[in-house]
Amino acid sequence: MARTADHDARRRQICAAVRRIVVQEGLDVATMARVAREAGFSVGLVQHYFPSKDALLLHTCRQVMADVNTRVAALITEGEKREQAIRTTAFASLKEMLPLDAARRDEYRVTRTFRGRALDNPDFADTVRSTAADLRAQLARAVTNGKECGEVPADTDPELAATRITALLDGLADQLHQDPARAVGHRGLDSCAEEILKTALREVFSGTCGRYRR
Amino acid sequence: MARTADHDARRRQICAAVRRIVVQEGLDVATMARVAREAGFSVGLVQHYFPSKDALLLHTCRQVMADVNTRVAALITEGEKREQAIRTTAFASLKEMLPLDAARRDEYRVTRTFRGRALDNPDFADTVRSTAADLRAQLARAVTNGKECGEVPADTDPELAATRITALLDGLADQLHQDPARAVGHRGLDSCAEEILKTALREVFSGTCGRYRR
Repeated sequence: MARTADHDARRRQICAAVRRIVVQEGLDVATMARVAREAGFSVGLVQHYFPSKDALLLHTCRQVMADVNTRVAALITEGEKREQAIRTTAFASLKEMLPLDAARRDEYRVTRTFRGRALDNPDFADTVRSTAADLRAQLARAVTNGKECGEVPADTDPELAATRITALLDGLADQLHQDPARAVGHRGLDSCAEEILKTALREVFSGTCGRYRR
Repeated sequence: MARTADHDARRRQICAAVRRIVVQEGLDVATMARVAREAGFSVGLVQHYFPSKDALLLHTCRQVMADVNTRVAALITEGEKREQAIRTTAFASLKEMLPLDAARRDEYRVTRTFRGRALDNPDFADTVRSTAADLRAQLARAVTNGKECGEVPADTDPELAATRITALLDGLADQLHQDPARAVGHRGLDSCAEEILKTALREVFSGTCGRYRR
């Protein structure tokens, strides 16, 4: 019998096939047969891991969203190791979720496709909701840390700030994906979106971090 | 032969049926047969107006999005008639797009379902893009008017401000729909979302309108 690691690897390969299909052709095309062909497995093997199309898609949705959060967590660890200001780390982490290059455009498309599914499927809605809650909680924690180290004014409400910044981030991502080449005045939307995000973070993290001796 | 008004009325009835189906059961269920049954027409009559399911859904998408913009335009006219500050009119108009009650939750669901479709259909993407561009243009015009009447500082970039505020609005709408009962600190997300929107508008429309003699 194959080891657990092999099972995990196969599940990941199957989910990766779903992601490619969603990016290239949309969710409707992701039948069990099409996914099996894309992954290079038999339909029987795919069914061994995922008894139904719904189970397969839901697992893929969870994995895609968990992958994003894992990447953000790694950026946070990296920022702390470099003794960056929290504002700098927060910007690098949140920017990671804007569709500013081909890879992140693909990721946007996959996550938004699953969000669309969440409109009429409670299991997907739960995953989307808890992923969004995780991100807000991470950002609220960053704001609380900022209050402790002096980067954030003491009267800031961490949850309110996190709600506002994540809302802005989501809306900017939508606009960037809808019309990446759009001009805003004399500049491109991409640089404007980064500036808008940076300004919003500076409004919250307006002080200086006293945590690291420099 | 029926008058044009009758044709328009029938098209609206058919699209209204699509909207009800999308709200209650999702886009996948909206086949020509199901839509005809929901509208109380024969399939042949539906096909007379819309030769394909794609044509039907695209027309519905356009109509739903145009209806939202028409409602916003009416609120703007109303605000001008009442000689409201631009900030007040902008708040009333934008709030109209937050899913704060059952009717607007339904509307959110329909527009976001069509946005999901836009991820893999260029015709839907065009409609979504141009609707978003219309709203941003209306808001940018409000900012420009505000610069003229004294409500907005002279160095404000109208397009940048409109980009930021519409992004915030979209993200807040997502969060309200995902989790309407969520608490932010001691308050409900609904009142927080309104406050966040109001604050963002106050940051742009920070002056006093000198247009109307009071």
